[in-house]
Amino acid sequence: MTEASTADRELGSTFLPRFDAQGLLIAIAVDSATKDILMVAYMDAEALQKTRETGLAHFHSRSRGKLWLKGETSGHFLRVQEIRVDCDQDALELVVTPEGPACHTGARSCFYRRLDGESLSRIEG
Amino acid sequence: MTEASTADRELGSTFLPRFDAQGLLIAIAVDSATKDILMVAYMDAEALQKTRETGLAHFHSRSRGKLWLKGETSGHFLRVQEIRVDCDQDALELVVTPEGPACHTGARSCFYRRLDGESLSRIEG
Repeated sequence: MTEASTADRELGSTFLPRFDAQGLLIAIAVDSATKDILMVAYMDAEALQKTRETGLAHFHSRSRGKLWLKGETSGHFLRVQEIRVDCDQDALELVVTPEGPACHTGARSCFYRRLDGESLSRIEG
Repeated sequence: MTEASTADRELGSTFLPRFDAQGLLIAIAVDSATKDILMVAYMDAEALQKTRETGLAHFHSRSRGKLWLKGETSGHFLRVQEIRVDCDQDALELVVTPEGPACHTGARSCFYRRLDGESLSRIEG
């Protein structure tokens, strides 16, 4: 990849994903119907390519050090409707249709608690 | 901080933020009125503490290696209404009221482009 200027990256129409020193960028999955954030994870170049090829969200698992098709064991895939890119192209917003709960705990979204003083409260949703 | 079990972290009501090897967690700012994602950045323990103390979103700038009060130069602060925590507590959702455009480019949100085939298109918003 050639070096892109800040202006190219921020104002241009060329997709120039900026992976960090670990080869990762942030990917936030948002429910296309409710606009709720469902989950956030990392993508490397391979995960991004697989996501674009298949239309199903793939991530890079930092703990397992490998490609991870979301839903590969649970069947709860995230079908990607649209990919949005932030100003400096180091983060993506995936607008998705979830096929089941997005969280491995069974919750619809991973963000099922809010900070309430010093403790966490369950958010009804 | 003592080691917390996965069950404590995922199902409990104790706030046990999990910073990564770089001492960071992901913080996603969402507009309380529109539910649009405004920006995403990293927080270290100091940024999280300052955010909770002041009610204004603070982040940790990886490029500058220091605490960053969002809006300190532009005046475009993000007033934090609620902090949500994800299942494994390594990411936060900040539900905010933005005081002006959240993006340094002047856009309301940093996610102002979508991937359209091989190029980026401006999203009207």
